Amino acid sequence: MHIEILKEGGVTAPKGFRANGLHCGIRKNKEKKDFMLIVSDVPCDAAAVYTQNLVCGAPVTVTRENLKNGKAQAVICNSGIANTCNADGIEKAEAMCALVAQYTGIPAGDVVVASTGVIGQPIDLAPMQNGMQALVDGLSEHGSAAAAEAIMTTDTVKKEIAVRVALSGGKVCTLGAIAKGSGMIHPNMATMLSFITTDANIAPEMLKAALNWCVHRSYNMLSVDGDTSTNDTVAVLANGLCGNARIETQNDDYAAFCRALFKVCNYMVRMLAKDGEGATKLVLCEVQNAPDEETARVLAKSVIRSPLVKTAMFGSDANWGRVLCALGYAGVRVDVHKIDVRFSSAKGEICVCTDGAGVDFSEEKAKGILSEDAITILVDLKAGEAEATAYGCDLTYDYVKINGDYRT
Amino acid sequence: MHIEILKEGGVTAPKGFRANGLHCGIRKNKEKKDFMLIVSDVPCDAAAVYTQNLVCGAPVTVTRENLKNGKAQAVICNSGIANTCNADGIEKAEAMCALVAQYTGIPAGDVVVASTGVIGQPIDLAPMQNGMQALVDGLSEHGSAAAAEAIMTTDTVKKEIAVRVALSGGKVCTLGAIAKGSGMIHPNMATMLSFITTDANIAPEMLKAALNWCVHRSYNMLSVDGDTSTNDTVAVLANGLCGNARIETQNDDYAAFCRALFKVCNYMVRMLAKDGEGATKLVLCEVQNAPDEETARVLAKSVIRSPLVKTAMFGSDANWGRVLCALGYAGVRVDVHKIDVRFSSAKGEICVCTDGAGVDFSEEKAKGILSEDAITILVDLKAGEAEATAYGCDLTYDYVKINGDYRT
Repeated sequence: MHIEILKEGGVTAPKGFRANGLHCGIRKNKEKKDFMLIVSDVPCDAAAVYTQNLVCGAPVTVTRENLKNGKAQAVICNSGIANTCNADGIEKAEAMCALVAQYTGIPAGDVVVASTGVIGQPIDLAPMQNGMQALVDGLSEHGSAAAAEAIMTTDTVKKEIAVRVALSGGKVCTLGAIAKGSGMIHPNMATMLSFITTDANIAPEMLKAALNWCVHRSYNMLSVDGDTSTNDTVAVLANGLCGNARIETQNDDYAAFCRALFKVCNYMVRMLAKDGEGATKLVLCEVQNAPDEETARVLAKSVIRSPLVKTAMFGSDANWGRVLCALGYAGVRVDVHKIDVRFSSAKGEICVCTDGAGVDFSEEKAKGILSEDAITILVDLKAGEAEATAYGCDLTYDYVKINGDYRT
Repeated sequence: MHIEILKEGGVTAPKGFRANGLHCGIRKNKEKKDFMLIVSDVPCDAAAVYTQNLVCGAPVTVTRENLKNGKAQAVICNSGIANTCNADGIEKAEAMCALVAQYTGIPAGDVVVASTGVIGQPIDLAPMQNGMQALVDGLSEHGSAAAAEAIMTTDTVKKEIAVRVALSGGKVCTLGAIAKGSGMIHPNMATMLSFITTDANIAPEMLKAALNWCVHRSYNMLSVDGDTSTNDTVAVLANGLCGNARIETQNDDYAAFCRALFKVCNYMVRMLAKDGEGATKLVLCEVQNAPDEETARVLAKSVIRSPLVKTAMFGSDANWGRVLCALGYAGVRVDVHKIDVRFSSAKGEICVCTDGAGVDFSEEKAKGILSEDAITILVDLKAGEAEATAYGCDLTYDYVKINGDYRT
């Protein structure tokens, strides 16, 4: 099953989707887009996953309600203000959906709404009301990049991808996505957002199952700083326009769709990790030969989350003791006397610990391997066949700088 | 019940304890003491708590075994090498106890042994064998400071305290302690160590109960970077020489002893937090009016551990949204719409959030309050009467610096 990665297109690569992004005035900097819209020509099946934080942004509450029937046709989002911890947040988020209805005719209840930016400051609807006509007028089949730019906060690069996979009956479905992260939780906070579109025809419960499977192994394995934002949302809209036989069971088409969706999520997670606040390196932890997948997941996340591991990666320091330490306090049973640890990158691979004890290795070679901008920490438990990968980044001076004086 | 804080004395303040610390050669820097011994003139009742990390230093394993009978008479400790993740660690830790027996006559099984330093490098016994005679010869009733210096790693100040409390029958008992931390987990590594001595006469099971009660509310509420070291140990030795009626039940003397022990632990935890790696500020989170103490504890720790809260404190930024966010993902049920947040320090107090939503406040006044070197984040849940305090520090450039290139 081949999954083709498209060079361009993002959320507008699948048939029947248009998007746009512009500066409406929520942010002071006029160079910075702050408002975006994605619409489908026809109603979509839809699913989403949200932050588990009890302090939950008003847009998350409204989107959750709107997606209860598994239907949506548009995504509206602003950056600059998170619309969280305000007395009238729900009202404002609903007003954003109503704006979509007013200007596009899409029912307000079929809108996914999101916001990202500062918590606890009221959001002003006026700039969005004033900018909505231009936003709708500019909707285009090439509008994904503008939409991707409009959701960026401290992100340093815009995040887009599209992929294509063959389904049965000679049909080909396309999936596209845009995302923003940076800090996972953006300072002050807020928000990993990811909007995925597809022209596959798939029943909402199957779409939800596919999304959950993928998110469990991608977004949920991502940690930039261990903080969980209040507004995180991953939403997927499927409009069915590629013409495949509707996916209603776990058949071959479901498997193909799931693989393609995972490709999109996996790509985004790497992009988000690498562009974590202040990060200079993408750091992966692969736990291999675990007794079960959950054990592997917990261990991989513990390593990726450790500030001491993260600073060591920043310093290109083969400080494997910190890896063992993070495995030891992860809270799952594991025989630490069987663990091997290796570091790998484009420069090669080096074994630094066997059976839980250090081995002689060339510090120079290790330094070379860890000086690359994408590093994998390989942990072999020698205790089964399950595996998991967690995604993160190094902890740097710039992380402290960005977060130490974000608001000032 | 008055607890008097003594200006001097540390672990040698209680009757019948002597200590010493010197440079024996485990560390290359000859200016840096790396070897210390504390002995009691008579056998002691003893108790200890240890790291929960599965990757556990060899000295912890040996101490745990030695304290099974609730008896000890000496503490030996080196800095420079953690004696963890080595094939022959147990053997080496036992050899350290045997050294004490050889030179002092105290049975090897009555020795608390600890090590702090680099993980995964073998420890060389020769420097300790060569230095042992001088270490024993130098044991003194004024030796606490030398012992405290010998266990420091990246600590910037030595940590000592002694307190005195009246017991029944006109007896007065003294408690003393030394500790090291810095990084909670010191990089690569390891280790919060705290050795407490007392001349109280107290049964080992009561001593254990008192220690557990205090540690639960002090050391276990401390987080510098969220990492849990492999060698953490808090040990207490009670030699009974103050002559009080042996404490064998939860009587008034037990209560007085417990309060005094908590004073010692609480002081040390503040010292350890304030001297956390790279820290410029002591940061406390007090959760008030919680439905129960465990809820208060979990919430307070979540706030203190959040990298985003920690960087905001570094930047003197009244970024209360990050506090709410950390409360929201702590994993306990709480009504976020009832939460008030205030910041306080020697400069005053300011309310920044009421009923889960932001209030107007003077950024200038807030900045002034947060620019102090000891800050308290007050969280009022308005949901009960329980409370808890967690202890931590800010996250700074220096934390990244210290941990990014520690070994090189």
